[in-house]
Amino acid sequence: MKLAWLDKLREQNPVVLNISNFVTVQDVANGLNALGASPIMSEEIAETKEMVAISDAIALNLGSFTQTQIAHIKKMGQEANFAHNPIVLDPVAVGAISYRKQTALQLLQDFSVAVIRGNAGEIAALANFSWQAKGIDAGFGDSNVVEMAKVVAKKFHCIILMSGKTDYITDGNRVTAVHNGTKLFAIHVGSGDMLTSIVGAFAAVSKGDYFEAAQTAALVFAAIGELAAKDKCIGPGSFTVNLLDQLFLAESQQISAIADYEEL
Amino acid sequence: MKLAWLDKLREQNPVVLNISNFVTVQDVANGLNALGASPIMSEEIAETKEMVAISDAIALNLGSFTQTQIAHIKKMGQEANFAHNPIVLDPVAVGAISYRKQTALQLLQDFSVAVIRGNAGEIAALANFSWQAKGIDAGFGDSNVVEMAKVVAKKFHCIILMSGKTDYITDGNRVTAVHNGTKLFAIHVGSGDMLTSIVGAFAAVSKGDYFEAAQTAALVFAAIGELAAKDKCIGPGSFTVNLLDQLFLAESQQISAIADYEEL
Amino acid sequence: MKLAWLDKLREQNPVVLNISNFVTVQDVANGLNALGASPIMSEEIAETKEMVAISDAIALNLGSFTQTQIAHIKKMGQEANFAHNPIVLDPVAVGAISYRKQTALQLLQDFSVAVIRGNAGEIAALANFSWQAKGIDAGFGDSNVVEMAKVVAKKFHCIILMSGKTDYITDGNRVTAVHNGTKLFAIHVGSGDMLTSIVGAFAAVSKGDYFEAAQTAALVFAAIGELAAKDKCIGPGSFTVNLLDQLFLAESQQISAIADYEEL
Repeated sequence: MKLAWLDKLREQNPVVLNISNFVTVQDVANGLNALGASPIMSEEIAETKEMVAISDAIALNLGSFTQTQIAHIKKMGQEANFAHNPIVLDPVAVGAISYRKQTALQLLQDFSVAVIRGNAGEIAALANFSWQAKGIDAGFGDSNVVEMAKVVAKKFHCIILMSGKTDYITDGNRVTAVHNGTKLFAIHVGSGDMLTSIVGAFAAVSKGDYFEAAQTAALVFAAIGELAAKDKCIGPGSFTVNLLDQLFLAESQQISAIADYEEL
Repeated sequence: MKLAWLDKLREQNPVVLNISNFVTVQDVANGLNALGASPIMSEEIAETKEMVAISDAIALNLGSFTQTQIAHIKKMGQEANFAHNPIVLDPVAVGAISYRKQTALQLLQDFSVAVIRGNAGEIAALANFSWQAKGIDAGFGDSNVVEMAKVVAKKFHCIILMSGKTDYITDGNRVTAVHNGTKLFAIHVGSGDMLTSIVGAFAAVSKGDYFEAAQTAALVFAAIGELAAKDKCIGPGSFTVNLLDQLFLAESQQISAIADYEEL
Repeated sequence: MKLAWLDKLREQNPVVLNISNFVTVQDVANGLNALGASPIMSEEIAETKEMVAISDAIALNLGSFTQTQIAHIKKMGQEANFAHNPIVLDPVAVGAISYRKQTALQLLQDFSVAVIRGNAGEIAALANFSWQAKGIDAGFGDSNVVEMAKVVAKKFHCIILMSGKTDYITDGNRVTAVHNGTKLFAIHVGSGDMLTSIVGAFAAVSKGDYFEAAQTAALVFAAIGELAAKDKCIGPGSFTVNLLDQLFLAESQQISAIADYEEL
């Protein structure tokens, strides 16, 4: 865990270029900005090369893509590979919708990614594991989720960040479990999407160590969520407000003080 | 009124598939999620059949559609009819823009809907009643708005939920008036769109009784708005926060205690 | 400065038609609504003429446009010119992305605008001044920013509102500097976009005096931001909530009491 990278991120203000889910884009932009990164969004393929050139990392969210966007995402991924910019992919709902799974698997052939961030159902789908998923939420299945994540990491030669009550980060061999977090993440629609882009921000300052970037991002976000949830009688409205405040205000020492993780 | 359906909704977590207004989509997703439903959004026609298959109800918001989306909406409506999933339609600004009115009327021929949710100006336009509307807000006219709503309900064989200071719900014969609410709904842009999707969530647990679903959704939302507006010196920022909190926290007994409605 | 125009705006509720940046559209709609204007958004070229006809001003945000939208923006600008509706243009990121600069410069030939609202890097780019910009934020350069803004105002025969720690408003001859504001604007992604549309609302009630509209809008927004930032330990989440509340609640006398501006 490199909590010092949070300070580095706030000094360097890396530019994270996002293909966004229009449902959560405002939250994601505000979350990146609050933490100390510079969000930039693009919808137009004609500006892809320039956008990649001014960016330090790419976050590709597949939460609401259209056919038009697939070509855009492909070009952005390929340009990012060419520029050696790390890519974080969020395969939203690939566990529930086979059209999305096919699209995500095709994109994973078109370019290589540094990190995939998803819930257990989404990660399972990428390796054709049997799994019950309902809508955007992960269901419950029988497989050993950690072993499954390791298989997916090896298959795509990338880091897997599997979100849930406990977050698991693996490169196919090493596994870290982050136990911090709050149930309120589940009732704030943008939580996962925000984490995906924040992984991008940490990847940008990681000098290529994406396992470290993913596990540090997971810990920072989970711990900040825990700090934001401290009030009693809190609901999703005030949690979102507190989350944005804490992304801006929380210091690495505060995170360190409550950090709860283990290497499996 | 079946306030017990709020508990049922929170147990069953129905999936509401939304064609969204991009202006308010984040609020709508958070509102559905806070109440206890599972929101899912889609922008791509190729995944329509699969999306409808995992959904329990459909909310079609015509707040910012493009030509491309019209084909998508038509297909989604027809697939939903085929799957017997209830559809709630929100004909945003059809009272002000004739292009939108023509599109909405065509869609109402392409598939049948369970509920139409709009303000008086929008409902009037669907039956070619003369009405003054300004932008997205309902203006003031001379017609008897309740009789007008009954005519529109009969014309489209559906339930009309006409929002305003008092909400009226009618199937063309029965009429319920819900007097709960707060002036702050009018200064929060996403209020109406949120209600439209929440009607979808109640329709999903109603076993086909859409009049009951619409009136219960109207009462629950109006009463929760009233609870959320209780602070003094509140503006649209803190109201939205409180509204999302109360959608999550409010119990059916609290709503019952302040319920103010009558069958006309 | 015509702070009385805030009251006029709240009486007249001008309709501001927006081409929106999908990242910030919800904040912009809520901000306009909170202040007292009526926001309306459109994504479909077929309804442009009708949309312009019911509008009092147009805000064109180039924050996330696609090729499809360029045709839409062009038509909207030309219809607005024909209807003598004032246009406010926000050339997002033209300082960083040459594709955006070329597009913005073409649009400025296709129709005339009343006001351009941007940061120093964006304003510089429109006149091909050398400038360092990083992402959506303005960088730091050597030119005299005020002289630069005057040149751009003369070039496009419009008012320039150049946002920053101090906002400068110029018609090419007169210059007003508005010193109010808060550092928190920079950590709330939608601040600039919100101001752009609010300039539109003031232009709508200005009877053609767009210099006065731009400087009054700048002062009102900066001062309201200052009021919203008064709490200690505030972050971007609670600032946004307070900002929307204060846009609704703040009276012209409160703004007058803290107004800090000068004619240069």
